[in-house]
Amino acid sequence: MAERPSRGQLRLNRRRLFAGSAAVVAAGATLTQCSIARSSVTQELSDSAVEPFHGRHQAGITTAPQAHALFVALDLAPAPGRGPRDALAAVLKLWTSDAARLTQGRAALADTEPELAQRPARLTVTVGLGPRLFDRIALGHRRPRAAAEPPGFATDRLEPQWCGGDLLLQICADDPITLAHTSRVLLKNVRTMTTVRWRQTGFRNAAGGRGGSMRNLMGQIDGTVNITDAAGFDRHVWHDGEDQPWFAGGTILVLRRIRAEMDTWDEIDRASKELAVGRRLDTGAPLTGSSEFDEPDFAATDRGIPVIPPNSHIAVARHRSDDERFLRRPYNYDDAPPTGRTTDSGLIFATYQRDPAAQFTPVQRRLAEADALNEWITTIGSATFAILPGVDDDGYLGESLLG
Amino acid sequence: MAERPSRGQLRLNRRRLFAGSAAVVAAGATLTQCSIARSSVTQELSDSAVEPFHGRHQAGITTAPQAHALFVALDLAPAPGRGPRDALAAVLKLWTSDAARLTQGRAALADTEPELAQRPARLTVTVGLGPRLFDRIALGHRRPRAAAEPPGFATDRLEPQWCGGDLLLQICADDPITLAHTSRVLLKNVRTMTTVRWRQTGFRNAAGGRGGSMRNLMGQIDGTVNITDAAGFDRHVWHDGEDQPWFAGGTILVLRRIRAEMDTWDEIDRASKELAVGRRLDTGAPLTGSSEFDEPDFAATDRGIPVIPPNSHIAVARHRSDDERFLRRPYNYDDAPPTGRTTDSGLIFATYQRDPAAQFTPVQRRLAEADALNEWITTIGSATFAILPGVDDDGYLGESLLG
Repeated sequence: MAERPSRGQLRLNRRRLFAGSAAVVAAGATLTQCSIARSSVTQELSDSAVEPFHGRHQAGITTAPQAHALFVALDLAPAPGRGPRDALAAVLKLWTSDAARLTQGRAALADTEPELAQRPARLTVTVGLGPRLFDRIALGHRRPRAAAEPPGFATDRLEPQWCGGDLLLQICADDPITLAHTSRVLLKNVRTMTTVRWRQTGFRNAAGGRGGSMRNLMGQIDGTVNITDAAGFDRHVWHDGEDQPWFAGGTILVLRRIRAEMDTWDEIDRASKELAVGRRLDTGAPLTGSSEFDEPDFAATDRGIPVIPPNSHIAVARHRSDDERFLRRPYNYDDAPPTGRTTDSGLIFATYQRDPAAQFTPVQRRLAEADALNEWITTIGSATFAILPGVDDDGYLGESLLG
Repeated sequence: MAERPSRGQLRLNRRRLFAGSAAVVAAGATLTQCSIARSSVTQELSDSAVEPFHGRHQAGITTAPQAHALFVALDLAPAPGRGPRDALAAVLKLWTSDAARLTQGRAALADTEPELAQRPARLTVTVGLGPRLFDRIALGHRRPRAAAEPPGFATDRLEPQWCGGDLLLQICADDPITLAHTSRVLLKNVRTMTTVRWRQTGFRNAAGGRGGSMRNLMGQIDGTVNITDAAGFDRHVWHDGEDQPWFAGGTILVLRRIRAEMDTWDEIDRASKELAVGRRLDTGAPLTGSSEFDEPDFAATDRGIPVIPPNSHIAVARHRSDDERFLRRPYNYDDAPPTGRTTDSGLIFATYQRDPAAQFTPVQRRLAEADALNEWITTIGSATFAILPGVDDDGYLGESLLG
């Protein structure tokens, strides 16, 4: 067990640490190996920490992942006599106003539990539009080409309750009470204009832990190879408005719900798991390396046999060209299993890119064809959303489309 | 927004703070008012922090509440040819062995995801037996008198899916991944001998925040008056084995699922809410005081009218004698609502006491008769469990009953 300063010691040291800054509590992750420097996961402990709301892009995408996420898909259900486009504008204006306040630790207008807004805990609210919505609001000609559902894949076992949606609301925070309050405010304020289609709750390691890449519930270190720098975001994530100038600064979310078949996964031994993934379970190092961020050597062989099997997950998932890269921001889920099953868990695999057809789809096609992991994972949900460009102080989300 | 030290400053300060103790990351809550000194909620940030497993009492009861909790009720379903008492002993031995390791940050035996055990994050595992189980295992004569379901109350609207159970597994941790892994290990290892009856997931503020009492999702500060000292635990919580010597060191959990009727709650104004509760929403102070921990003055009047209404929640809930006190350790829940409802949230109201008939029941009877809050809260689940005494290094949970 780790040695631990007593409460008295801690208090004294904390006082010294934060002398003159009484409202602040903040500390961070242990500095182990290269985790802080290399990983996109940074750790904040302060429940008063805020993420910016206004800007060229929405927050919640390149933001270091918070501990908790809620993804809600809604369908527009405008009142009789009100057009869907008016209803959409009303929803987006309400969400913009509420999110601009809540993310900064301020109560929403007419917030009935304003004190629950006092711990923003890096809250972000991110909003997107489903591809089919553009036709519904008679703006099909303004749909970005990239905002299209990917094709079906042979390994998909899609369940309608996890697919599609007119609108996406993504709420992320390091504190679960903040998340619950935010979702209540944002959803109740639009309840006369929308119906909830699905709702997915996810989590990563709690903020304030030792940092480093997250493990998923299959035990693998998840997200080692990812885009982490501004140039990469500009190149791979943010849409440049090419075919639809109003969409410059947006991105396309492809959200997949991937069930882990834990019972069969737990029947195979560690060596088999490592061959299926292509990485060590303990360190996350590629089978040809010794630490997580070592470059895999896909050409390495041992007595003529590839050290990293060509059908291992990392070999198949690896981008074949730089153009295929996209940002992943996954969350674990662990829900109540149906009767007779021990576990209902897996990954809410959130991917962000300028064009899924050029980025997500070719990679997923290879994975569907060859990934050794397919025996233990099943994609049961899929939904695509055009994540709106960011908003200035005096605008509202979607204004460049609807305004 | 609060001033925040830069990452570089933090790193330096942290290094100084923990010099000589490289494995430790720990910091704590802002020292506001009297929250740390007076509240039972303490805050730990370290995901390597451990709670003791062995001892006279099980952990997870007087332990400062962790951020996340899972309560699972199971029924014994022994294989043909195996008696329920044997099955129970097998389950309790497995859980003891697994919990003794997992709570200390070590993988369970044959843990298929051992790396997920590396962040104990103050994990506790707490085990109890339902009152009806004693007859099932032909040990009805060894049931503690106190291990009995409370009577029904007029305001109960109990739904069978949230009631009863042969066995309780309570898992609490500050990290949701730790909790998910622990529940998987503990539940899969007993799947041939049990069926899951219900499962309730709850949360409080994330560990590492500013500390202080939790707010529930109705916006109230929750848990101000509670038992926080060892003498109080001995007097009100721990059973002394009076009628059943084997049960000395145990306690009785009465777990209520209390739905918050958020839509109607949000229709009333703040003054009405404060009168219903008897406390200020902002500070949690009683209506006769100015800060959370001020003693309410139930005799105070303003122009002949009581300042704290006699039917307010705190006036009715207040213990009439010291004998009525019990320990509360509540968690919020916020689940996917059924179609047409905006929210399915409320409180998993976990109470621990030596004898519910003398402690929980008289208070709850008064609340059912008179609590002004009843209009906005509905008890939809109830379950009672004899929380087993603690265990030594070489024993197993329940050995004093079964051994």
